[in-house]
Amino acid sequence: VSLLPPQITRAIEEFQKLPGIGMKSAERMVFHLLRSTRGSPETLGAALTGLKANLHYCVQCQMVTTKERCDICEDPSRDATTILVVEEPLEVIAFERTQYKGVYHVLHGVLSPIDGMGPEQLKVRELVDRCAAGGTSAEGMPKVGGIAEVIVATDPDVEGEATASYLREKLKNLVPKVTRLAHGLPMGADIEFADQVTLKGALDGRRSL
Amino acid sequence: VSLLPPQITRAIEEFQKLPGIGMKSAERMVFHLLRSTRGSPETLGAALTGLKANLHYCVQCQMVTTKERCDICEDPSRDATTILVVEEPLEVIAFERTQYKGVYHVLHGVLSPIDGMGPEQLKVRELVDRCAAGGTSAEGMPKVGGIAEVIVATDPDVEGEATASYLREKLKNLVPKVTRLAHGLPMGADIEFADQVTLKGALDGRRSL
Repeated sequence: VSLLPPQITRAIEEFQKLPGIGMKSAERMVFHLLRSTRGSPETLGAALTGLKANLHYCVQCQMVTTKERCDICEDPSRDATTILVVEEPLEVIAFERTQYKGVYHVLHGVLSPIDGMGPEQLKVRELVDRCAAGGTSAEGMPKVGGIAEVIVATDPDVEGEATASYLREKLKNLVPKVTRLAHGLPMGADIEFADQVTLKGALDGRRSL
Repeated sequence: VSLLPPQITRAIEEFQKLPGIGMKSAERMVFHLLRSTRGSPETLGAALTGLKANLHYCVQCQMVTTKERCDICEDPSRDATTILVVEEPLEVIAFERTQYKGVYHVLHGVLSPIDGMGPEQLKVRELVDRCAAGGTSAEGMPKVGGIAEVIVATDPDVEGEATASYLREKLKNLVPKVTRLAHGLPMGADIEFADQVTLKGALDGRRSL
């Protein structure tokens, strides 16, 4: 690879740091940009250089935003007494495609001792403060009523379950209801190939027709 | 997606212009960069912004380089009488991993009328000039001998075959030998699943043991 000019090698190396991008994909991307009429290295470069400019977390729900409070927290038609707790900002977008009308809290990760992720690395204190303060930020915003329910929507894997248990312990004396997303069969699933944990969850959570 | 800050949306859109990157992958990449400790949007952004700086094509073989002539063309130990013609710069890197000791010519594409790629869009004239001049650039470098062989290594698909035929017609009166890479079974292939064109190529090109 030393045959390639250093700036090409460097761009290939940087692309390889992205999730799911190996050497071949990184090479293809760099040469695509060098030749493409649709995108250019300068356009993507400028978009990335300016990515973090004026970007911060909503003081209430920790969603990425360019304002102090995000659009969802500012929307008076949302049910501010229900907080859906997610791992990442993209999961907010996913739940917004459903009919969910409450508000959110973004943890920015899950508990994972192996990766050095403890409660201090996550936005856990902000969630606890928010529940203790009763539905608004601790920064002196008026209380409009307590939190009725916290729905923990971390992924159904080892870290997600551990994080959910930890949050339940932290919140059980602050909010009346701490719930977890249902386990069950995804739409279009084939029961024959479903794993036993999913099937048990679907059985335990069965509903009357 | 309008829920996301505009600079994030823009970066996601730019990533989607890369080959093989859909919306989900683009979203993952942007949020990975926002959070990652390994890479950062600024580092990748700077690498891309500077990608084309001081980058041009070797005056002889059209390989990407930061110099006037690339390292391979400058290397006196290479056999300058054999030219391997490839579609893209990355294919030079691929052949360098073999024992090939000749030099190269990069076309920067293949003939493809549907995509508006004619001979003028490719580095065909440069190849013809090179063969006519006898192995060195037309810029006054001393002639050390004519080209003995041009090996056309375009991909074995419709465009690659058409490009190979076109080059053979253009070069047949300039160089003694215009050859094409062998068709045959790739290493590790399963004959049962090989297509008929590959099998016919392998039969036609059979060698004595």
